[in-house]
Amino acid sequence: MAKDTSHTSLREGITAPQGFQAAGIHCGIKKPGLLDLALVASEQSGPIAGLFTQNQVVAAPVIVDRLHLRQGIGRAFLVNSGNANACTGPKGLAATRMTVASLAQHMGISPHHVFIGSTGVIGRMLPVTRIIKGIPRLLAQLSDRGGSDAARAIMTTDLRPKSIALQDTIGGRLITIGGMAKGSGMIHPNMATMLAYLTTDVSITRSALQQALRLAVNESFNCISVDGDTSTNDTVLCLANGMAENPTIKKGTAAFRRFLLLLTEACQALAMAICRDGEGVTKVVNIEVTGAATVAKARQVAQTIATSTLIKTALFGEDANWGRVMAAIGRAGVSINPSRLSVSFGGIAMVQSGVGLGLAAEHRIAKVFRRKEFAITVGLGQGRQRAQIWTTDLSFDYIRINASYRS
Amino acid sequence: MAKDTSHTSLREGITAPQGFQAAGIHCGIKKPGLLDLALVASEQSGPIAGLFTQNQVVAAPVIVDRLHLRQGIGRAFLVNSGNANACTGPKGLAATRMTVASLAQHMGISPHHVFIGSTGVIGRMLPVTRIIKGIPRLLAQLSDRGGSDAARAIMTTDLRPKSIALQDTIGGRLITIGGMAKGSGMIHPNMATMLAYLTTDVSITRSALQQALRLAVNESFNCISVDGDTSTNDTVLCLANGMAENPTIKKGTAAFRRFLLLLTEACQALAMAICRDGEGVTKVVNIEVTGAATVAKARQVAQTIATSTLIKTALFGEDANWGRVMAAIGRAGVSINPSRLSVSFGGIAMVQSGVGLGLAAEHRIAKVFRRKEFAITVGLGQGRQRAQIWTTDLSFDYIRINASYRS
Repeated sequence: MAKDTSHTSLREGITAPQGFQAAGIHCGIKKPGLLDLALVASEQSGPIAGLFTQNQVVAAPVIVDRLHLRQGIGRAFLVNSGNANACTGPKGLAATRMTVASLAQHMGISPHHVFIGSTGVIGRMLPVTRIIKGIPRLLAQLSDRGGSDAARAIMTTDLRPKSIALQDTIGGRLITIGGMAKGSGMIHPNMATMLAYLTTDVSITRSALQQALRLAVNESFNCISVDGDTSTNDTVLCLANGMAENPTIKKGTAAFRRFLLLLTEACQALAMAICRDGEGVTKVVNIEVTGAATVAKARQVAQTIATSTLIKTALFGEDANWGRVMAAIGRAGVSINPSRLSVSFGGIAMVQSGVGLGLAAEHRIAKVFRRKEFAITVGLGQGRQRAQIWTTDLSFDYIRINASYRS
Repeated sequence: MAKDTSHTSLREGITAPQGFQAAGIHCGIKKPGLLDLALVASEQSGPIAGLFTQNQVVAAPVIVDRLHLRQGIGRAFLVNSGNANACTGPKGLAATRMTVASLAQHMGISPHHVFIGSTGVIGRMLPVTRIIKGIPRLLAQLSDRGGSDAARAIMTTDLRPKSIALQDTIGGRLITIGGMAKGSGMIHPNMATMLAYLTTDVSITRSALQQALRLAVNESFNCISVDGDTSTNDTVLCLANGMAENPTIKKGTAAFRRFLLLLTEACQALAMAICRDGEGVTKVVNIEVTGAATVAKARQVAQTIATSTLIKTALFGEDANWGRVMAAIGRAGVSINPSRLSVSFGGIAMVQSGVGLGLAAEHRIAKVFRRKEFAITVGLGQGRQRAQIWTTDLSFDYIRINASYRS
């Protein structure tokens, strides 16, 4: 994820691909002056792929999007912040459907081509009248430079808007992927809503697009997530309008692999932006577990380390408390041989054969803990499988932000 | 655990039962002036029961205690704070054995009757010479009023020492249980070392004592713990010296049940003291899950709620953010029907049939969130099984304490 790239980086974000426009306005959900409603619209409809939360309690927009995804054709994303429209029952579902119907009518398109997202407080009724009143204004402001306003309008506790745009040549045509995301609670990502919207002008079959999105998300958003546990609203959608006019990409081809690389890179850039913008985050740490018997076991150990509040707090305090890493490995639920464990910090060995290497090593890793980004590498000495996950520290600001989120 | 009791409460703690003496001194592990070495000794040896961490990475004292427990006879507890003697390899094990041998020699008893505990920083070599030098001083200071010094000497980040003593009449004899504990990291108990030592003058068979301890711990320390995940050092030991001269208690008798009640009450009092003294804790909240198909499922949902940093942070901020509870239920890994969920706070219903009950209910539960202790009750609507667990809030002080624990 930290690798260099030769792909061109563009500033427009989600409106960088051909035929996409966007806008972001204040419709009255958040405090005056704060953008809270975003629209992304394509000149042409096209295949759309999506992945949603695995939470069993899902918000109304997720129910509607899943239904619309069955037809697999998209034209517009409408996303509000400030209200998650979750735990709102049949009334909440009706509110989402009214919003969808209103936008579809204004745009003269099928409601099934509208995809909707909500993020914010759970359990409050969606102020549907304000949203519907905002739709004509949103449409009037649509612009091919509107990606930045849209990215701002979907923010909740995010400190910074998150956009990406990347280009490559496929089938002799220049193709572009644009994206925007929100999410900053990556200290405990399983409850912090993450929304990511991707646009592209590539021509691709729907099944190829869905496969590419699934693979790209596994190598990006799922590496900063935990156990597939997600919030009530998590959504990743990718809409391809085909306007680059490349030969339509099908699964299993060289063009598919090339597109997959570009999509993965876009998702990774957004995922790392979320990680760095975590609520109160001062450090981003890569947890790598090697020498595991299976990938699942490597992942389980990495996740136990990544979610330990004692380790996260030590990261914030720049306290090289490697014993907490040892304790996390031992309780991860994976059978280990303690005398085979090795642990290093920023490449400096601290534990070998399960035993600490003493004060000299501790002084050296203390310097690593002062860096903004570094790696913790664990060797289990059991096999050849590995897994990695990104985590962040737990700071005073995390508590400040989350203790008063709704106030 | 909050129930009234008719049992007499005594102040002496671990030295309240007949024939027990204790002392606590500063031997030089912690900063000058801080007690860091505790000894509890019985006039007579007797059956001992024990439960240890389920972590696969275990500290040297746990290895030694497990070995000694095979013979099942105890006479003394020797416990140091400031150093956990974990991840210290063969040298750490040798250090523990030297300490045991030294105390056994001074007391003129078998080394197998000595049980040892360590708590503090992981991965540093135990300053064995300082401990051995301290042993004669400890023995000289042994007193039947030494329980309070001993309880202080085993503290790490604890704000308060934790002692208990309870009495009842069994078999026509007055019997006493005394106890001390340390532990205050209950915000994430699976990595915070918890040590608890219990003494009693009851006469009981070893197998009955082990069974009673296991049952009592299940209803106390395990209700503030998570998943059986524990630190490298967690230990609960109970030594019975028989000096009350009651008819020896055997399993399955009325006397056994009466002793079990008393032991459970002592363990619950210590467990709640640990919870209330959690690092930076300002609230203690009882999470109760009812209507589950199995106890395991009820427990899993309760634990997911109890360990959510977003919920813990909301508790600290007194933010009645019930949506975070709904999200935790949905991602707990237990199959649920969202439309059957109910949630109440301090007995006030907030969610029925999966839907929020509106702003009036929210205003009422906001008042509950201002209390120091209250209950969150979840109904799954699936069956008749239930489970409960105690949790605490996540505060600025938790981070302050843990970010600089070793500095």
